[in-house]
Amino acid sequence: MVINMMLEEVLKANEEFVKDFEPKKLSHMPQKKLAIVTCMDTRLTGFLEPAIGIGRGDAKIIKNAGNAAVDRDVVRSVAAAIHALGVEEVMVIGHYDCGMANVDPEKLEANMKARGVDDKVLSEVNLKEWIGAIDGEEENVMVVVEKIKESPFIPDDVPVHGLIIDLYDGKLKVLAKDE
Amino acid sequence: MVINMMLEEVLKANEEFVKDFEPKKLSHMPQKKLAIVTCMDTRLTGFLEPAIGIGRGDAKIIKNAGNAAVDRDVVRSVAAAIHALGVEEVMVIGHYDCGMANVDPEKLEANMKARGVDDKVLSEVNLKEWIGAIDGEEENVMVVVEKIKESPFIPDDVPVHGLIIDLYDGKLKVLAKDE
Repeated sequence: MVINMMLEEVLKANEEFVKDFEPKKLSHMPQKKLAIVTCMDTRLTGFLEPAIGIGRGDAKIIKNAGNAAVDRDVVRSVAAAIHALGVEEVMVIGHYDCGMANVDPEKLEANMKARGVDDKVLSEVNLKEWIGAIDGEEENVMVVVEKIKESPFIPDDVPVHGLIIDLYDGKLKVLAKDE
Repeated sequence: MVINMMLEEVLKANEEFVKDFEPKKLSHMPQKKLAIVTCMDTRLTGFLEPAIGIGRGDAKIIKNAGNAAVDRDVVRSVAAAIHALGVEEVMVIGHYDCGMANVDPEKLEANMKARGVDDKVLSEVNLKEWIGAIDGEEENVMVVVEKIKESPFIPDDVPVHGLIIDLYDGKLKVLAKDE
């Protein structure tokens, strides 16, 4: 078991980081007035920001499994970014080879059962829906762009663009430019 | 207006990045078997990862306004990370000076009205609740830790730790170590 292994490692890394870090007071307002909705994928961690020229203080970043708008959580966060934090432009950035586009409900259910998730709980949900499986990466970006744009909490004059990044070569592609 | 200004800038930055980037195939499984739930705050962008020693490919990162579990979206993403992507440890990492701990509902409503959000829409919601305001940063971390732990989709043997980071000096503090 790896229990608490990462906690110790993370705390040690932070101790080292703090030694050399020059304390700095930054504004909580994103300097580039930008919010990005993207995926929790591990290959985007510490990669998306440099790949698109975004540094500390520049943008709000929202991440979940599949950059999906399964619940209202993405719209809530984007609305907070706009109305409380000065955001004026939104980008939904998906990526190819997304785990949420390749969900095998039977395998997922077997994995859950093996880890002790209750049979009754599993029988009461459509797992593919519950986990937020998406049909295709490009299509999902467009679904989420539309979901954000059609919310009454999102002003019409805030552009919401759809993009997708290739995790192999880092190349970003525009799917929909909102004018 | 800044419309599309950031889109052009981001695409240009990506063009430059791709020129020097050596294409690399990475596993979609996080190498440190870790999922982190944290905030969309702009001061965490490009900062949290180096501050805790996490690099590309190491961990899944989930982010929303206030690292809050307002909806089931955080639990859904953590469950996907565990059951489909091999995650064995979870950290909820809040931060001090969080915008979601200082929501002024009247100011927020005025901002929304000024941006054209419909009066009727605003009259139908409790804005403070809708936006996911939190009572305090430390308390909120513990609420989210409990929400994840009590979900029937999260195995009992996956530790869920609560931590908080100081955005000024980068120091990480443990609020609850899950043994």
